[in-house]
Amino acid sequence: MASLIEPRTLKGFRDYPPALMIPRERVLQTARNVYRSYGFAPIDTPAMEYAEVLLGKGGEESDRIVYRFKDHGDRDVALRFDLTVPFARFAAQHINTLGTPFKRYAMGPVWRGENTSAGRYREFWQCDFDTIGTTSNAADIEVALVIYSLFEALDFKNYKIRINNRLVLNGVLLSIGIVDKSAEVLRAIDKLPKIGWDGVKDELEEVVKLDASESYRLLQFADWHKNDDSKEVLAFLDSFGSPVELGVRRLRELLDTIRTAGFDTSKIQIDPSIARGLDYYTGTIFETFLTDLPQIGSVCSGGRYDNLASLYTKQVLPGVGASLGVDRLLAAMEELKHPWLTGAATPAPVLVLNLDMARLGDYQKLAQSLRVAGIGTEVFPEAKKLGAQFQYAEKRGHKLAVIAGDAEFEANTVKIKDLTRREEQVIPVADLAVATRAVLDRP
Amino acid sequence: MASLIEPRTLKGFRDYPPALMIPRERVLQTARNVYRSYGFAPIDTPAMEYAEVLLGKGGEESDRIVYRFKDHGDRDVALRFDLTVPFARFAAQHINTLGTPFKRYAMGPVWRGENTSAGRYREFWQCDFDTIGTTSNAADIEVALVIYSLFEALDFKNYKIRINNRLVLNGVLLSIGIVDKSAEVLRAIDKLPKIGWDGVKDELEEVVKLDASESYRLLQFADWHKNDDSKEVLAFLDSFGSPVELGVRRLRELLDTIRTAGFDTSKIQIDPSIARGLDYYTGTIFETFLTDLPQIGSVCSGGRYDNLASLYTKQVLPGVGASLGVDRLLAAMEELKHPWLTGAATPAPVLVLNLDMARLGDYQKLAQSLRVAGIGTEVFPEAKKLGAQFQYAEKRGHKLAVIAGDAEFEANTVKIKDLTRREEQVIPVADLAVATRAVLDRP
Repeated sequence: MASLIEPRTLKGFRDYPPALMIPRERVLQTARNVYRSYGFAPIDTPAMEYAEVLLGKGGEESDRIVYRFKDHGDRDVALRFDLTVPFARFAAQHINTLGTPFKRYAMGPVWRGENTSAGRYREFWQCDFDTIGTTSNAADIEVALVIYSLFEALDFKNYKIRINNRLVLNGVLLSIGIVDKSAEVLRAIDKLPKIGWDGVKDELEEVVKLDASESYRLLQFADWHKNDDSKEVLAFLDSFGSPVELGVRRLRELLDTIRTAGFDTSKIQIDPSIARGLDYYTGTIFETFLTDLPQIGSVCSGGRYDNLASLYTKQVLPGVGASLGVDRLLAAMEELKHPWLTGAATPAPVLVLNLDMARLGDYQKLAQSLRVAGIGTEVFPEAKKLGAQFQYAEKRGHKLAVIAGDAEFEANTVKIKDLTRREEQVIPVADLAVATRAVLDRP
Repeated sequence: MASLIEPRTLKGFRDYPPALMIPRERVLQTARNVYRSYGFAPIDTPAMEYAEVLLGKGGEESDRIVYRFKDHGDRDVALRFDLTVPFARFAAQHINTLGTPFKRYAMGPVWRGENTSAGRYREFWQCDFDTIGTTSNAADIEVALVIYSLFEALDFKNYKIRINNRLVLNGVLLSIGIVDKSAEVLRAIDKLPKIGWDGVKDELEEVVKLDASESYRLLQFADWHKNDDSKEVLAFLDSFGSPVELGVRRLRELLDTIRTAGFDTSKIQIDPSIARGLDYYTGTIFETFLTDLPQIGSVCSGGRYDNLASLYTKQVLPGVGASLGVDRLLAAMEELKHPWLTGAATPAPVLVLNLDMARLGDYQKLAQSLRVAGIGTEVFPEAKKLGAQFQYAEKRGHKLAVIAGDAEFEANTVKIKDLTRREEQVIPVADLAVATRAVLDRP
């Protein structure tokens, strides 16, 4: 006999069995529904592209992590490492046909050959939405509304959308007189929630070489991230005067619009400390924290950029968007015992037991009457002992069993069993869907 | 200024803009819903695996088409070229934890570096469902029901599910005395719908070297594929006696069960000519043809196999399943002018026009009242001229515009415009969702 191949996955890659995949599909479907409800349209781009297109020029860091190889035609190709670069290429190629403003979402796996660690994989899903072709603050404001609607739809109660504007940060640096060191300064400030005031002070003075008064003024500014009252924060920011004026105006407009639109502004926090990387974002910045699990970091982040596709086209395409970190969010949901992680390994709440193979057509008929009523229903394929079938139902997480033998068929009835409460009832066949729905709707 | 990178995709790869992606998402979501309604659970496996795992031993043909390379850790890796091989590896690894029977579906892109042609890409989606761990005919029968439910849900009226059983074919070959040539014979027979009686006769006599009476008897058998009456076909097959008995019994049971379950058996055709490849399938075989476009071939195919994962485990895992050819189906839908291919480039039927940036909060409030009623609604981000906004709505395919300026807000009213019929009405704000729904529901 031929020797077996050991069944295994690559380091940093993983299988999704049903109990993990069912909540992931629910999260993706929820994001899809929310994005669509705001008019974002789906697009898809290839997993593989010319390496030149994905890597541009330079990008040593990208080069190291990107899966890159020669294809059968000796082309230098690579797997996408995010959905932003392919979107930029897509926009450069198609925007004249599509027209602006253009609102898109994209969902799919991306690949990075990075070091793996807990919760960090080499294949993971991104789930982005963006509006391009407009500088209107309306698009920025809508990003906040989409994130808000998304986390409500994801059934989270405790979350905070933190918002800043790079124009404010730049204005503050200007007013302190340290614009030339902005990259290092922003990098240090970004760490405030993680390493605290003293940690950032050390970095600002020892690495960035600010003097004590500069670092003090900067930290005093950034420390306003603790303040929950966005109106107070905005009033404080006003004190920096004209250098921050435009940024503050856009933040204030955002807050006012969200309030007028009827959303709960206590979910929104103006946070002067968030910077999100160095180069990419040029305006509004978004982060989203689960307040019961802040240590996992932002689960939905984004911002405004001046020009999406400058590598590929002279056409200037400003835009704003954000990305849901699906895998990080799922890890958080697991830790928070989110109600969507039920452990069930079946999407069908009902199992029709099989007492007699000759009754298969009747069982499928019963099942079909539930399916057309929108209730997922499986028929057990073999007439095994009932004990084994109940065990199967328990393992899979079915909630209700339908049981019918000769006696029931004779009487035109059917037995249903609530598998959670272990309660049975005999009902007319005609009532099956209604009675099943009633059992499934029990709290 | 740095030179631009030409934005382009690789040969055989393509972008999906919204007008293509919206129907694709609808097809995938429909398949997902149908699979789930029968209790098939989602799983996912990595796009990339050890080459050894994906290619097994040998498989020169696979070798030629598979994207294979060395990763950063010098591992010999490859991209999946179907969803069946990864499922076999997955099953070998996890089946003892998951238990049997195990019903799964999987959807995702696969990659093959083949020659491209019209409608044939190097990246395309598969959409599979299987039941493994049981030899019960109930699982085979359910595959037919799932395909039936799927094409009903996909809004096709004219399709035919053709079903055969390899045991019947083998029995017929045995009774004619040509079992030793079965591979070449089946290959020839599979071409009957394409090259006709004479073409197959030539191939059987000149390539396979059957004598005239053998080829006649075989063709007479296979020609029953023209017969629409499955009962007659089964009666004819009975005449081959004991060699075909088990296969015919399973086909007859399938047909009877489907009838008892209340499904329309005129969609099912027992077709003795279909063979589907040579080695893989060992029992029931399924193909699905769109009767208005038979030349594109089967759009949903599958069958029963004796042992899924013999490369990876000694555990015998029989199963049965099928795969929806998403891209081929979409091409067919386009050609048949299927109602789902509307050309719309937005998933949101409603556009709220922007007459005044200072009203943005009010516009988002109106939009939100529609979104919570389940009606996708976009707010135009800039207070451009109305003509430009109407043009945008037409280009995107919005069906209804909401228009509100000072006069409307003053009166607590809003104007809605049916963009198809170009009819306007002014309604109280409180009636917006109901009135919008009424317009959208117009035939």
